[in-house]
Amino acid sequence: MADGLRVVGTRPVPYGAYEKVTGQAVFGADIHLPGMLYGKVLRSPHAHARIRSIDAEAAMALAGVYAVVTAADLPPAPPGAPPRARYARERILASGKALYAGHPVAAVAAADPHTAEEALGLIRVEYEPLPPVLDVLAAMRQGAPLLHEELRTRSLAGLAQEPSNVAQHLRLSKGDPARGLAEADVVVEREFRTATVHQGYLEPHAATAAWDADGDLTVWTCTQGAFDVRSHLAELLGLPLARIRVVPTEIGGGFGGKGRSYLDAVAALLARKAGRPVQVVMARSEVLRATGPTSATVIRLRMGARRDGRLTAAVAELFYEAGAFPGAPIDAGAGCLLAGYDIPHAQVDAYDVLVNKAQTGSYRAPGATQATFATEQVVDELAGQLGMDPLEFRLRNSAHEGAESIEGTLWPPIGCHEVLRAAQAHPHYRAPLGGPHRGRGVALGYWGNWGGSSSCTIAVNSDGTVNLLTGSVDVSGARTSIAMQAAEVLGLALEQVQVTVGDTATAGYADVSAGSRTTFATGLAAIAAAQDVIRQMCERAARLWGVPVGAVTYDRTAFSTRAGSARRLTFRELAARVGEAGGGPVIGRGAVDGDQVGYGGGFGAHIVDVEVDPETGRVRVLRYTAVQDVGRAIHPGQVEGQIKGGVAQGIGWALYEGCQYAPDGSLLNTSLLDYKLPTALDVPVVEPVIVEVPNPNHPFGVRGAGETPIVPAPAAIANAIYHATGVRMQELPMTPAYILQRLGTIEGA
Amino acid sequence: MADGLRVVGTRPVPYGAYEKVTGQAVFGADIHLPGMLYGKVLRSPHAHARIRSIDAEAAMALAGVYAVVTAADLPPAPPGAPPRARYARERILASGKALYAGHPVAAVAAADPHTAEEALGLIRVEYEPLPPVLDVLAAMRQGAPLLHEELRTRSLAGLAQEPSNVAQHLRLSKGDPARGLAEADVVVEREFRTATVHQGYLEPHAATAAWDADGDLTVWTCTQGAFDVRSHLAELLGLPLARIRVVPTEIGGGFGGKGRSYLDAVAALLARKAGRPVQVVMARSEVLRATGPTSATVIRLRMGARRDGRLTAAVAELFYEAGAFPGAPIDAGAGCLLAGYDIPHAQVDAYDVLVNKAQTGSYRAPGATQATFATEQVVDELAGQLGMDPLEFRLRNSAHEGAESIEGTLWPPIGCHEVLRAAQAHPHYRAPLGGPHRGRGVALGYWGNWGGSSSCTIAVNSDGTVNLLTGSVDVSGARTSIAMQAAEVLGLALEQVQVTVGDTATAGYADVSAGSRTTFATGLAAIAAAQDVIRQMCERAARLWGVPVGAVTYDRTAFSTRAGSARRLTFRELAARVGEAGGGPVIGRGAVDGDQVGYGGGFGAHIVDVEVDPETGRVRVLRYTAVQDVGRAIHPGQVEGQIKGGVAQGIGWALYEGCQYAPDGSLLNTSLLDYKLPTALDVPVVEPVIVEVPNPNHPFGVRGAGETPIVPAPAAIANAIYHATGVRMQELPMTPAYILQRLGTIEGA
Repeated sequence: MADGLRVVGTRPVPYGAYEKVTGQAVFGADIHLPGMLYGKVLRSPHAHARIRSIDAEAAMALAGVYAVVTAADLPPAPPGAPPRARYARERILASGKALYAGHPVAAVAAADPHTAEEALGLIRVEYEPLPPVLDVLAAMRQGAPLLHEELRTRSLAGLAQEPSNVAQHLRLSKGDPARGLAEADVVVEREFRTATVHQGYLEPHAATAAWDADGDLTVWTCTQGAFDVRSHLAELLGLPLARIRVVPTEIGGGFGGKGRSYLDAVAALLARKAGRPVQVVMARSEVLRATGPTSATVIRLRMGARRDGRLTAAVAELFYEAGAFPGAPIDAGAGCLLAGYDIPHAQVDAYDVLVNKAQTGSYRAPGATQATFATEQVVDELAGQLGMDPLEFRLRNSAHEGAESIEGTLWPPIGCHEVLRAAQAHPHYRAPLGGPHRGRGVALGYWGNWGGSSSCTIAVNSDGTVNLLTGSVDVSGARTSIAMQAAEVLGLALEQVQVTVGDTATAGYADVSAGSRTTFATGLAAIAAAQDVIRQMCERAARLWGVPVGAVTYDRTAFSTRAGSARRLTFRELAARVGEAGGGPVIGRGAVDGDQVGYGGGFGAHIVDVEVDPETGRVRVLRYTAVQDVGRAIHPGQVEGQIKGGVAQGIGWALYEGCQYAPDGSLLNTSLLDYKLPTALDVPVVEPVIVEVPNPNHPFGVRGAGETPIVPAPAAIANAIYHATGVRMQELPMTPAYILQRLGTIEGA
Repeated sequence: MADGLRVVGTRPVPYGAYEKVTGQAVFGADIHLPGMLYGKVLRSPHAHARIRSIDAEAAMALAGVYAVVTAADLPPAPPGAPPRARYARERILASGKALYAGHPVAAVAAADPHTAEEALGLIRVEYEPLPPVLDVLAAMRQGAPLLHEELRTRSLAGLAQEPSNVAQHLRLSKGDPARGLAEADVVVEREFRTATVHQGYLEPHAATAAWDADGDLTVWTCTQGAFDVRSHLAELLGLPLARIRVVPTEIGGGFGGKGRSYLDAVAALLARKAGRPVQVVMARSEVLRATGPTSATVIRLRMGARRDGRLTAAVAELFYEAGAFPGAPIDAGAGCLLAGYDIPHAQVDAYDVLVNKAQTGSYRAPGATQATFATEQVVDELAGQLGMDPLEFRLRNSAHEGAESIEGTLWPPIGCHEVLRAAQAHPHYRAPLGGPHRGRGVALGYWGNWGGSSSCTIAVNSDGTVNLLTGSVDVSGARTSIAMQAAEVLGLALEQVQVTVGDTATAGYADVSAGSRTTFATGLAAIAAAQDVIRQMCERAARLWGVPVGAVTYDRTAFSTRAGSARRLTFRELAARVGEAGGGPVIGRGAVDGDQVGYGGGFGAHIVDVEVDPETGRVRVLRYTAVQDVGRAIHPGQVEGQIKGGVAQGIGWALYEGCQYAPDGSLLNTSLLDYKLPTALDVPVVEPVIVEVPNPNHPFGVRGAGETPIVPAPAAIANAIYHATGVRMQELPMTPAYILQRLGTIEGA
């Protein structure tokens, strides 16, 4: 189907673009319901404290206050439920203990936000402060304060006996790492630290809940996955899925951080108690204090290579902060760490470690960017020690189809080699640096992407236009890339396809828009729905013409009988005659399990030039080229946008961003004045280079594009800084202060 | 499938019932959008006038006015378009002529309704008044003022040469009526008149329109058919269907009158011109003056019978007022007039006649109630002259399967005989009248029902609940009767099926909810969607069990292999394992062309006792029994509600309701104080008797139930009045004044 494409590969104006640029788009906080109340959340000032009592009497007595809820308003987890069920509740409203500074302990609904805010101050919570643990290595030490007294480490050996802050110990290995290291002529071993980084989406979380007289719940929320929010609410509130309607609003940035639900259940509890709709919108400080950033990590990596430039072994330990509840992305971190390389012997130990910070959440290629920061510097150092060109060294060891990964699977067709070759061939790689204190870095990165489940319906209108409905939230242009695939199959111009993101009551199921899955998997569902439409249209044509259905074909221009006779109708012409043909309206459906179909991972190779001011430590990014295999770019403009955006965030990780905590665990930089996101002045014009090594499991070859571009960025910049300064960086962010310290210009380790 | 029913035939609380009784339901005027303006419509005070000019300058200059629109803002009909296209525009905003008192000529959008109202007064319209024609017979006379100068009468002979107010002359005939009349021993000939009657829905029309930055239009409106509104807007505004989203709100009564769009295009034009959302809500007086009531009629009917009680012939002329634009329901009137009787010789001439009143619209069994008012009195009179029991006489001549109708078709299985027998057997028919001035009347009525096109989707949730989506507006319980059919097929309890009425962007196409089609046709679509779900679930079970799909069956309790082995999963259990089975989410679709499948008409036989006060002419309805064949009552409680509601409206037609016009054509009774709807005090407890002669083309036998119950009511009451007074009534409404006149108590014809 990849031949003669008319829509795929073009660059139409995306659906919703005009709404967004004119301010008409309806985001989470733009929902207004008659009689709506405003909710606010009371949060623990302590990073670790037992909650002795909560007294809301004075708050309830304040005029304009309609409801106060605490954990006591949540139905308890069913008996025998796994700890996960208890965590799901504790995350929303703490009962026994507050586990981080910002942990919700109560919420108020009032006639206006100011009254709600005032009422928060009247709620008396008696805390028994406990010592917090804020560092991943400290949390693993014997005798460290325990966040969850009943937690035992899960590993291949089963559940441990002793309580611990380590929720999971994962080990991946292949070959004989000791032998591999012994075979090496050069070994590099380094330890790295990465900071807690927030996704920094501009739209704060917002949820609005209303119960109807039938006892059914509707929630409008800014989320990456309406069906996930529905499952979460069903679990917490004990309702059947069908009685909850979750309506996703437009979303002002997610980057993984809007996959988890924070306010929806709180709004629902408040609305039920108040008997009125309730809206809860976070302040920026709440977003930064209490919504899941990425894991801070400590990573130890040892790699060896032979003089001929072949890697022989890699041994790594990955310590990932989970925050207050288990779930750091150690699987992805461990899986991506060495993905780019065909190494005969390797072992990765990864640890999911609880600390008294907000629970970490997904952030664009979760876990991979931290791991790659380590790998790509060590690989760079090995190449340097061997006197090899860094891209040539990577190419010599690059992963390829048929090679065995550390997860024990054989690589399907991948574009690792292709992106390295494209980077090598790019003029940037040979361009003069043009000044002192400048360096060029390269790095390779990988994200596995995801499949997940999706569905679509397509209804045919009598004028030949169609309405496509999907439950996939449009985080970054998915409406357009999905509709383009349907248009291609239907032989329609994109303008003839109207696409609507449905809610959980109207659209069929779709997994969260995350993991770079949406264009791939929901695209497949749209293709299947379009094929279902074509099948039915062929039946109608056959009926009109009195021929067997098998005699009718559609060539994306017209339906016709095989004979190529005068029996020929365009889509539009046949759409007008669907009623005449009998059988009712044409509505096609498509559903897909993207994991089963087979998604494809994407490699990216970045080249970056930096200039380091030796006096101030300030790094300027001068030029950036990001090569990426996306399988097939359905909408190259949107893919380039993803690549540019991913690099911009990678520059943020590299140079600016990091949550800073006081010794008591409270977050110090709780505004975007203190938490520095890169601005337009900090990010150069990024040149994206699209490589297309098709995913054989998608008719157009789609892999996914959104996450890979962040992965190599901090490592590439670190390598560039090294080549500019001769000094290796081992921490993120590489702020001027840190760089000066590493350069020995100011005092420090 | 009709055996072992678990859901069909039960009486659950309908979806949305609690919302409606608690005032939470969102009706047309409950939509509130940020920045919304309020529209008002300027209407012609003249029933017939040429519009010379419209000057809106002063109105636009009023502070708070954002837009004024006139017919000039509507794109003109495409060249060569049929007159219908011009009428569609003129209906919305008059250009050349105002054709009735109340005809819209301009509209204003302002910051609040009062300013809009004030601005209307500032629009200067220069009219040239023309003589109006207000009576159907007067309008047919040579030299009558012409509403549409270019209109020619359409008949079997083609288009007439001369202009006329008669849009159509329809003739139906069978046999040789002259011979039939000659064979008769008794002939009765009468002329009847029926009044213009309004549907009297309590919710006034309301439409809210908003354009987005992409130039797409969304309209929230109270309508019986969102897709019809969409087609109407697409035609008038020249937009592709997919770019218009029509969202139907809850509807506070329709009865046919909310099938037509009045305000939607006006709101859309105002919103586009103002650049803001605009809501237009009618006042009650606008509803009564300017939305389509039923046709006033003159009917002449001659029928003959032999002494043995067999009807030999019927000859009728039906003159139906169309109002300002063609389209009186003469087809249905002519088709229903004699539907209950197997008459060898018959001829019906029916005329669609323009008069200077609001265009008539559908009203519950459109056209049939007027015709039946004539037939059933003449039949009653014939029975009386032959000395036969009126039900026995009807039974002797009743229509039956295989008999030829006047439309030339053979009757499929119908329940005419069955309802007459059930009425005859009912205790009411033999109960003593118990007092003087009392009489008992019976009448037989028919409505053909309709099929139309519908579609549904059903999405399966992992907890075994399902979400059903339909584009069929729920006018009177359709959500429930549709979902019950799906629940039955899926083997689920109704609580496990959540049903949502979608909009035109989310749901597949559905024709207007009218013609008593929804439970039949959308029910069929729901059944088809449920069967599609079951098919897919069987595939999943087969995959889980590693057996061929043909080996799996579902018995509405569990999926199992034919062997009856341990391979057995309930719907809920399998729903939880759908993901595991692969293939993605399960979403079923169903679409149906109800006309092609074959809908079934419904007969009703009514028995009514009245008491006539000879001094005041006041009629009290003492007892009412309504027998009706509904094929299958999916929800008997809702069917009984339809029967009671239909009878209540029939009592209104019979005794109270009628639009009264001044000689200049202006409506005199423009409020519900002046236009008398029957109240709870005027309607006795109606006893519905459900007869079920299944429609063989529906798995459960559904025919439709909503319209038949109004059809015989006025005739039955007229017959009862005759039996109480000995005097035949020939006009509707049979007000005290009219009755006294007929009784000769007061002066009159």
